[in-house]
Amino acid sequence: MTVEPRTLQRVLDGRWAEVRDEVRGQMGELAFHPDPDMSTADYRALTTDNLRLLARTGRPRQGFDPAYGGGGDVGGVVTAFAMLGYGDLSLLVKAGVQWGLFGGAVQVLGTSRHHDEYLKPIMDGELLGCFAMTETGHGSDVQHLRTTATYDPATHEFEIHTPDPGSRKDYIGNAARDGRMAVVFAQLVTGGESHGVHALLVPIRDEAGNAMPGVTIGDCGHKAGLNGVDNGRLTFDRVRVPREALLNALGDVAEDGTYTSSIANETRRFFTMLGTLVRGRISVAGGAVTATEKALALAIRYGETRRQFADPATGEEVVVLDYLVHQRKLLPALATTYAMHVAQADLVSDMHDLQAPGRTPDERGQRELETRAAGIKAVGTWHATATIQTCREACGGAGYLSANLLPQLKADTDVFTTFEGDNTVLLQLVAKTLLSDYGRRIGKLDLVGKARFAADFVAGTVVERTGLRAVLRRGDVRDRACQRGLLVAREEHLLASAAQRMRKALAPGADQFGIFNDTQDHLLVAARAHVDRIVFDAFAAAVDRVAEPAARGLLAQVLGLYALSTIEEDRAFFIEHSYLTPRRAKAVTQAVNALCRQLRPHARTLVDAFGIPEPCLASPLLDGERDGGAAVSGPSPSREEPTDLASVG
Amino acid sequence: MTVEPRTLQRVLDGRWAEVRDEVRGQMGELAFHPDPDMSTADYRALTTDNLRLLARTGRPRQGFDPAYGGGGDVGGVVTAFAMLGYGDLSLLVKAGVQWGLFGGAVQVLGTSRHHDEYLKPIMDGELLGCFAMTETGHGSDVQHLRTTATYDPATHEFEIHTPDPGSRKDYIGNAARDGRMAVVFAQLVTGGESHGVHALLVPIRDEAGNAMPGVTIGDCGHKAGLNGVDNGRLTFDRVRVPREALLNALGDVAEDGTYTSSIANETRRFFTMLGTLVRGRISVAGGAVTATEKALALAIRYGETRRQFADPATGEEVVVLDYLVHQRKLLPALATTYAMHVAQADLVSDMHDLQAPGRTPDERGQRELETRAAGIKAVGTWHATATIQTCREACGGAGYLSANLLPQLKADTDVFTTFEGDNTVLLQLVAKTLLSDYGRRIGKLDLVGKARFAADFVAGTVVERTGLRAVLRRGDVRDRACQRGLLVAREEHLLASAAQRMRKALAPGADQFGIFNDTQDHLLVAARAHVDRIVFDAFAAAVDRVAEPAARGLLAQVLGLYALSTIEEDRAFFIEHSYLTPRRAKAVTQAVNALCRQLRPHARTLVDAFGIPEPCLASPLLDGERDGGAAVSGPSPSREEPTDLASVG
Repeated sequence: MTVEPRTLQRVLDGRWAEVRDEVRGQMGELAFHPDPDMSTADYRALTTDNLRLLARTGRPRQGFDPAYGGGGDVGGVVTAFAMLGYGDLSLLVKAGVQWGLFGGAVQVLGTSRHHDEYLKPIMDGELLGCFAMTETGHGSDVQHLRTTATYDPATHEFEIHTPDPGSRKDYIGNAARDGRMAVVFAQLVTGGESHGVHALLVPIRDEAGNAMPGVTIGDCGHKAGLNGVDNGRLTFDRVRVPREALLNALGDVAEDGTYTSSIANETRRFFTMLGTLVRGRISVAGGAVTATEKALALAIRYGETRRQFADPATGEEVVVLDYLVHQRKLLPALATTYAMHVAQADLVSDMHDLQAPGRTPDERGQRELETRAAGIKAVGTWHATATIQTCREACGGAGYLSANLLPQLKADTDVFTTFEGDNTVLLQLVAKTLLSDYGRRIGKLDLVGKARFAADFVAGTVVERTGLRAVLRRGDVRDRACQRGLLVAREEHLLASAAQRMRKALAPGADQFGIFNDTQDHLLVAARAHVDRIVFDAFAAAVDRVAEPAARGLLAQVLGLYALSTIEEDRAFFIEHSYLTPRRAKAVTQAVNALCRQLRPHARTLVDAFGIPEPCLASPLLDGERDGGAAVSGPSPSREEPTDLASVG
Repeated sequence: MTVEPRTLQRVLDGRWAEVRDEVRGQMGELAFHPDPDMSTADYRALTTDNLRLLARTGRPRQGFDPAYGGGGDVGGVVTAFAMLGYGDLSLLVKAGVQWGLFGGAVQVLGTSRHHDEYLKPIMDGELLGCFAMTETGHGSDVQHLRTTATYDPATHEFEIHTPDPGSRKDYIGNAARDGRMAVVFAQLVTGGESHGVHALLVPIRDEAGNAMPGVTIGDCGHKAGLNGVDNGRLTFDRVRVPREALLNALGDVAEDGTYTSSIANETRRFFTMLGTLVRGRISVAGGAVTATEKALALAIRYGETRRQFADPATGEEVVVLDYLVHQRKLLPALATTYAMHVAQADLVSDMHDLQAPGRTPDERGQRELETRAAGIKAVGTWHATATIQTCREACGGAGYLSANLLPQLKADTDVFTTFEGDNTVLLQLVAKTLLSDYGRRIGKLDLVGKARFAADFVAGTVVERTGLRAVLRRGDVRDRACQRGLLVAREEHLLASAAQRMRKALAPGADQFGIFNDTQDHLLVAARAHVDRIVFDAFAAAVDRVAEPAARGLLAQVLGLYALSTIEEDRAFFIEHSYLTPRRAKAVTQAVNALCRQLRPHARTLVDAFGIPEPCLASPLLDGERDGGAAVSGPSPSREEPTDLASVG
């Protein structure tokens, strides 16, 4: 069975295949590997230049409102953004700050008065800006950030103020060097009354690049990675902006200071606002997928030429990817990356349809999208960090050299698990939503139903209702139905048992925090199990859509490896709750090993199918492909010349 | 129960407490945090200056032969070396290359003719050198490296030659900038006959720092971390050195070219040579422990001041270390670090006694030491990489800023899992030794014994003999006896079953490579289980030696958390092989959570007990300890001044 990479690439490229190809073409111009020894100042300047190059491609404007010269193609622009992950991740993040966060906030939280004045220069990259939400003291708990925007009816102005060091805006991209304006999130106060967090458009630098009066700009300095992005800090000392600076799509203040909003409930208004910003989170998840694909392409291609230790029988040295433990390191991670790629593509597609211009708002759909985005971002970025680390180790000493690109991939993506929502906090968010949906489901049962459910649950037969037991007892773990059954059973079981435990918190006088805290680890695995299952479903559906039998067959094996390695990782759960017997658990491990062996010959095809432009992978790590075996790892030969020794001693 | 950090520190400091205190005093002078934005060239120069400072302390010479002005204190010098892990890891690695690898090889592989001429300048840091073993094409498989040293009886010289690009010496510390000589490992050929890998002392640069004729020196360039170390490449084009350049402790060549060695068997000679170099591996394991301790001290102290989200009952924001999931991230890792610290101290102590001057060689003891060193290096460095990563994430965005030290810790230690023996290869080495010891044990049984053993094993009752079943069935998982029983049972079971599978390879005409490859993952877990058990035993013994009841009690809890979190991680195994029932497996998880809660109040004491000099931890991350709560994360306030904006726009 031979499958062409191109056939698989069509599957992976999906709905925005043309956009992907367009960006692939542009990568040649944009994708470069900055000298890792470059100073932070130079790297920042270089990244800004690249940002302007990117603006000139006209790509970024495609995400904005057609009424202002945009393309209205939200899905396309998020897809294009993720493709930058094959190149320099500092550019990806800087672009995300400028057009996704800053521009996106002006678009969705602002109204015509802001759009008319600012959208065009933002799209063109003439007006660079910041998204000033995070504070030193409040990263995850945004609802309680402490910067204030107090309305003064006398002057029709807002006064932006930083009351204490902890309220300083922190880790703000574009702040340390380039930003001229910032969308500042602050507690809106008018008539002595607070109305919760709102966003205002605040100038932070004049045209000469000097900080505006009352604004103190700090520099976060050198970071683990992404040093092409100028992260900084903003402190406001009673800075005054006109009333019109308020991005007033969700709430407004009249000249006399009267506050009005279409959403009466403050908390609901806050979460509605956050919801409009879901695109940023989805974009990070996309960048994590492409970065992981790049790392796997490097490690697997190296593993196909790198030889170590001889086969006693033949005396010939063995290609490292022929070792089972090496396959175990890379192939399940590759299968999971395929699954994440497809689940991410669905997420982008659904977001695109939900936010399509003129589309009537679908609150339920939006809520589902936000939950899925949180889950996929958390699971996907953790997968990226772990996989890129594994790829580095799988390339040994060569993987530690900057010339071989893996160090930057690791360092740049490391913060993905933290920004746009800390992963642990995001999974708690997912768990909360699942619990309330679950409560509603149970709530709908009549008394008898509730009683039976409780009984079933105590008897550990909670999934009887789903009719899965039979499959689980008799099915072959290599069958998709059995795999899905196991994933669903785990999800249902963990959710039901978490609900049981949380119910205690509803009792009068219960130690709510204590109960929540004791259940916290349980909630996280429940959320994780949910994400694993929806990712499986997304991948399975994509496999079924493939027309070519050979390609469908190969992808079905990849799906199987994803499912079985996921089940194997948590096999303790399945045995503990007798969804698997020890014997069947062993069968899972054997099946994973068998799939590793079966997919080994297709490993190169599977990474080529990502369609990563070759210049993005250019590194001495792959010289072995030329030399046919003896991979020479390290900087290009030119650096070997004696000229290089001028610097010595 | 309150315990003073100092009391615990005495336990951790152990046999070389004075050496540790001496180095703590010197850290003030040495431990600095180089500007992360410094160029590689400047960082290398700075590290060389620090190396010379270090030489002046007289510390490094303590490891060498007293006959040459050394202190003969091998254990003390390895302990002192590890302490450098609290400071700049580039200095630690550069010192390891100079005195551990280069100097160590001259000491143990050379004889008086080398010692007389070179030991003093090496100890004083006047003669900087390289340890040129690894080749581009042969990293792990050292026995088959391809550089040749061919003896020419006509001129009484060896000709050192690099036959092909894959035989180039690669990743060689001290090579790119500072090294004047190199201990070069090459296949020794005399009279047309090869005698395997030997080491020769080869000049690579003249006093002016220019490469010697026939030597081409390359630069590995920028790396993920450790950029203060000048890693380079060496290529030899028929370079001639006198016969005396051969480090001839284990094998020698007479003027007429006759080869002689006290060890007839070539393979045995090779492994004896590697064995003499075990110190390097043990030193890396020590550096991994101190680096992990530094990361945990930073993350736990931050976790005690950082607040996020309010307790609904009190309305007060909660310190993040009070969250169960945060404790789960850091406290089991802290317990494991305590265990590794103690196991490492025992390893160093045993090495010291084995290699004490005048001590008659103990081959069995040496072999045991090498196996333990391989296992502890692999498990300890993987633990370091994972824990430092977790600490970075546990500090959120603040953990990503270089000013807060975690990024350098992560980047610098990342290669520890690769150098001084790739971890995967090392664990295979451990497994091989365990298997042959095991074979000998079984071999000693009479036929009936063999038969019963086989039967027992098939019945899955292999550990009956050890009389553990009873403990395992009835014991409380919180009891140490039960914990040890589980760890021993796992070790025995995995080893016995691996032996069963490997036995097939002995059959005539068996596909040896195929069988080995299919069993590879099994062998690795067996080795891992063995290391977990010996680390447990080392820690348990240390706890029992503690006199103060309160301290002993606290450390017993730490031991319990180490054991139970280790068991929990692999609980699938214990249930699969019915060493634990699902109910008891849950009890393990509950016990881990309970211990996290019990140890939470002692977390600060436990990290203070490492006795890390405060300057080594100085970072904005800990400002919250001053401000009492609102941790200000990022560069020091001075960087906030408008002066900083000069660079802007």
